[in-house]
Amino acid sequence: MLSRFKQTELWLPGISVDCVIFGFHENQLKVLLLKFHNTHVWSLAGGFVGVEENVDQAAARVLYERTGLTDIYLKQFYTFGDLERNDRAAEEHRSVTTAMGSPDDDLSWMSKRYITIGYYALVDYSKVVVNPGDISDAADWVDIAALPHLFLDHNKIVNKALEAMRQSLDEKLIAFELLGDTFTMSEIQAVYETILDKKIVRTNFQRKMLSLDILVRIEKKFTGGAHKAPYLYRLKP
Amino acid sequence: MLSRFKQTELWLPGISVDCVIFGFHENQLKVLLLKFHNTHVWSLAGGFVGVEENVDQAAARVLYERTGLTDIYLKQFYTFGDLERNDRAAEEHRSVTTAMGSPDDDLSWMSKRYITIGYYALVDYSKVVVNPGDISDAADWVDIAALPHLFLDHNKIVNKALEAMRQSLDEKLIAFELLGDTFTMSEIQAVYETILDKKIVRTNFQRKMLSLDILVRIEKKFTGGAHKAPYLYRLKP
Repeated sequence: MLSRFKQTELWLPGISVDCVIFGFHENQLKVLLLKFHNTHVWSLAGGFVGVEENVDQAAARVLYERTGLTDIYLKQFYTFGDLERNDRAAEEHRSVTTAMGSPDDDLSWMSKRYITIGYYALVDYSKVVVNPGDISDAADWVDIAALPHLFLDHNKIVNKALEAMRQSLDEKLIAFELLGDTFTMSEIQAVYETILDKKIVRTNFQRKMLSLDILVRIEKKFTGGAHKAPYLYRLKP
Repeated sequence: MLSRFKQTELWLPGISVDCVIFGFHENQLKVLLLKFHNTHVWSLAGGFVGVEENVDQAAARVLYERTGLTDIYLKQFYTFGDLERNDRAAEEHRSVTTAMGSPDDDLSWMSKRYITIGYYALVDYSKVVVNPGDISDAADWVDIAALPHLFLDHNKIVNKALEAMRQSLDEKLIAFELLGDTFTMSEIQAVYETILDKKIVRTNFQRKMLSLDILVRIEKKFTGGAHKAPYLYRLKP
């Protein structure tokens, strides 16, 4: 099961990619986390870079392997190359490999120094079918406001991804990547509020959003009380 | 002279850093370029990452080795990991090593696949004493509007650095890193215009700059015709 990690001639040495996969569900921004077999250690979705693979391709492959999705907004945001990643790797390697009952050399890659290239992905939560993969036995969407202690420097990687995403929020309208094809104004507002981690005045938000001239109003979303039904919108083509 | 490149146990395999060193001179944004010995091949200032060195430290060391400067605004902006870097490396390796009259194995590192982590530095041009280093015999500050064809994908790296710098221009006021301690309003405007590659209306620029409340007006800069002397400014502490 772990054999492909031993085939070191297939992978570039010392390099990995880690994907911060963001989804939006129940008015919360969530990150997809994986749990190593037989442990309580949670990590981001990550992998190595093939010797015949672009780094961007490696990140897209990792994303596909864990979510089944292609053609997803996936952006490189930072490369993590501090030595202290390494110190912590040696320590966590011992506890994880022991718990996973793996001969030491099967997971020896875990204790080495890796420079990891961080990507964040914005996915439509409802379309994801999670596959935990070879070395994990569980996967879960976790609120960014309630992350556990993660493997290595993965908490830092999530925080840096959030920073990068906030910078691109207005400029590139990336928030819509997290929504389905149609959405209400309050759903858009909830995405912005959770990413920015602050409340926005509803009327101001609505005015700003409409002034961007990017939305098409479709019809009311009837959910019972028709007199309160909100309009549905979609992005202009 | 080239011996340290052979000591592969000192460096991480397959990883490099490249620094786009920006300076501002004669109303132009310039990049510091180096020319490989006995060739016409120009490149950015780059280097490897020591096995006991953080990636950020490697970039700061490269910057110091080429400019003699420390405590400089130095920012990681993107990591370049496409396979095609490699194809081009094999090709350029042949022409450069032949011209440099080096035994093939001395410069064999040049033909391998590297993933390079890009940094840009903003320096006060007047403080730089350029040292071309071990493998170059010339260095020059070149207008970003008139760059030659550079080694590997270094033109692409410069363009991506410019993009990143433009994004941080307002938010982080990085333009001032390129100026001395005191400057005139038209010098600041020239920095902005050259980075953004567009003309700005003088009165608008001045109004916006003063509204930021970050400048202290010092005194007039007398250069002869006193009636036209512009004010000097410095950044508030």
